[in-house]
Amino acid sequence: MTVSRRQVLGAGAAGLAAGAAAVGGFELAQAASASDPAPDPALAYDFHGEHQAGIVTPAQDRLHFAAFDVTTSSRDELVALLRAWTSAAAAMTAGRPVGAGTVGSYDSPPADTGEALGLPASGLTLTFGFGPSLFTRFGLSSRKPAALEPLPHFPADNLDPARSDGDLCVQACANDPQVAVHAIRNLARIGFGTVAMRWNQLGFGRTSSTSTSQATPRNLMGFKDGTANLRAEDTADIARFVWVGPEDDPKAEWLAGGSYLVARRINIAIEPWDRTSLREQENLIGRERAHGAPLSGGTEFTELDLDMKGSTGPIIPMNAHVRLAHPTQNDGTRMLRRGYNFTDGTDTLGRLDAGLFFLAYVRDPGRHYVPMQNKLSAHDGLMEYLQHTGSGLWAVPPGVRRGEYVGQALFA
Amino acid sequence: MTVSRRQVLGAGAAGLAAGAAAVGGFELAQAASASDPAPDPALAYDFHGEHQAGIVTPAQDRLHFAAFDVTTSSRDELVALLRAWTSAAAAMTAGRPVGAGTVGSYDSPPADTGEALGLPASGLTLTFGFGPSLFTRFGLSSRKPAALEPLPHFPADNLDPARSDGDLCVQACANDPQVAVHAIRNLARIGFGTVAMRWNQLGFGRTSSTSTSQATPRNLMGFKDGTANLRAEDTADIARFVWVGPEDDPKAEWLAGGSYLVARRINIAIEPWDRTSLREQENLIGRERAHGAPLSGGTEFTELDLDMKGSTGPIIPMNAHVRLAHPTQNDGTRMLRRGYNFTDGTDTLGRLDAGLFFLAYVRDPGRHYVPMQNKLSAHDGLMEYLQHTGSGLWAVPPGVRRGEYVGQALFA
Repeated sequence: MTVSRRQVLGAGAAGLAAGAAAVGGFELAQAASASDPAPDPALAYDFHGEHQAGIVTPAQDRLHFAAFDVTTSSRDELVALLRAWTSAAAAMTAGRPVGAGTVGSYDSPPADTGEALGLPASGLTLTFGFGPSLFTRFGLSSRKPAALEPLPHFPADNLDPARSDGDLCVQACANDPQVAVHAIRNLARIGFGTVAMRWNQLGFGRTSSTSTSQATPRNLMGFKDGTANLRAEDTADIARFVWVGPEDDPKAEWLAGGSYLVARRINIAIEPWDRTSLREQENLIGRERAHGAPLSGGTEFTELDLDMKGSTGPIIPMNAHVRLAHPTQNDGTRMLRRGYNFTDGTDTLGRLDAGLFFLAYVRDPGRHYVPMQNKLSAHDGLMEYLQHTGSGLWAVPPGVRRGEYVGQALFA
Repeated sequence: MTVSRRQVLGAGAAGLAAGAAAVGGFELAQAASASDPAPDPALAYDFHGEHQAGIVTPAQDRLHFAAFDVTTSSRDELVALLRAWTSAAAAMTAGRPVGAGTVGSYDSPPADTGEALGLPASGLTLTFGFGPSLFTRFGLSSRKPAALEPLPHFPADNLDPARSDGDLCVQACANDPQVAVHAIRNLARIGFGTVAMRWNQLGFGRTSSTSTSQATPRNLMGFKDGTANLRAEDTADIARFVWVGPEDDPKAEWLAGGSYLVARRINIAIEPWDRTSLREQENLIGRERAHGAPLSGGTEFTELDLDMKGSTGPIIPMNAHVRLAHPTQNDGTRMLRRGYNFTDGTDTLGRLDAGLFFLAYVRDPGRHYVPMQNKLSAHDGLMEYLQHTGSGLWAVPPGVRRGEYVGQALFA
């Protein structure tokens, strides 16, 4: 008899939560699957629409994220870039190469770099954002959203400027990484002379579901992540917590229908974590590992009982991640997370440079992200194993109508 | 009408080769697909067999490669590690977690790190190799294969020691990168105290096919790669050029049925390449880009005509990559390549750190790799755009029989 990974690690959550000593069998119990059916390679999302794709779109499996600085001082050149990016994004998300339909010359560089020729659209989405630094130039200062302030320093931040910020950002998500990498590369190439890539991040596995049609994936701590995530189907809360409303900011009406993107590169101390007992891991998270059920019992989607008592205090500890992040502890706030696992080699001591590239879309970062992160950075027991090494905030304009370019209302 | 990436870029190769001026239509012509059907997530390869899996196995889409240095001086501890790695590899390649079936303790770290719980086997293979440096210790010097000498310095090499060599290597290939990363991480963890990870490399897209059942993929130069690659179905040439024979090396009979793995991290100067004309690109490669046909005409798998004359010399230039790498120019040698595209962020000037992680399995590196690479490094026109930044050579023992451990014959 073979035992699959689907059949692993799970005594009843309540049994574990009660500190049951007889856990010998838990390695053989059934673990919920994090696996969805293989996505259709031909899946293609329209680049145009009321909102940009890549936000409530069911999170694709792979990510290439890039931040750019604008190197020109010409507003016209910046606008021309956004037009060219829009045209290229519409083509690539449809599975077409850049410049298809134009007449090429054998004596010129190809319009498309070619590594995705023959590959289907693979669910590619391209989502564009404008950073705070963009608004200091190009005559944009009067239209800068009030909420677009650089994120504050959080306790224990150890940010690398070379992995933080940027005038512009592009989030490329796809089910084939070669398609996502191809998209970022071609956008960078189109921007040559107008923008320079500041940093970029590859993500190999999504750590959140953004649709109820998706199973909950696992992060590199081995736990299901994003069980309580906002999902596209939660339309009322999406409207409340994700999309900027027309009344939100009189100086930034152009942003109505858009959102704010928070990015945080969070390194995980993989090796120490892997030497931590299952009990300690589950207490730090506040859920059992096998199925993602809260330590207070039930199954993955059972509501937490933050008041349930154990022998030495609350069953879900006071410093557990799920407690501190819970809406009841954060003024009712919910968040649309869209993060990815990453690994970027090893450091000089041979330790894996790996972790979670946190991405979240929020209506107002000052209300929907900063207070929670201040609390987590100061009190979350997990912080012993985490280090925030990159950070950025961008205003994400609304969707693009046919014939227009991304962010057009900002420049109108 | 929309134009898909499948319908791009291709006048007839012969027309291009003849320098036809009328190429206006080539952006709309049909390009061969590099896309295979989505692989079955449940695909599982047996870890046991005559040869290690991951060599002639149809190349999976994703790679995590790791090199380790042995930190113990105890031969027994090294053997114990190989036993533990064998057991873990057999489990993970079958889609099972490490330690499944053992009795765990809630007060101990979980036997498996968990991020692949619920994920299917995803075609995972784990392939192990022994580097030259291993044989200076552990009483192994008398059994060191004669061909296992560090690769020589090639013209224009710019190797980073932190991305080169290593006592041991593990190649993890899978169709889901999270499954490959999970495997390397768990092997590293099992090795804690015995080995330290020296370097590792993630690859996001295969650049060769190793089976006739697979379409030819494209590298980051936008060209089909590995058209002339050895494939599993070429059984006679696989036997001749890949597997070490029992008579090859009297000091290393333990390696019979194994092979040698050459790894080269080859950076591509992406931005300059992307500013090169299609004509120049095709002349440097020696094939047209759309379909991968030789410039001497035909279709992708048409044999090169190295003698065909053009107006200013051979149609396939003297410094074209395909000419210099062709078996007729290399004493009849063929090679089983198994490389991957990579991108590892940006350098300090904002240029993409990207390229091709070259992996090849050869029967004798001194005959089947070194002479060709000396020629390519010195004469290949492509070298203007390439820089070799990492390198390694390992002896890859034969397959593992049930009840044995990887490389057992070396230690017997």
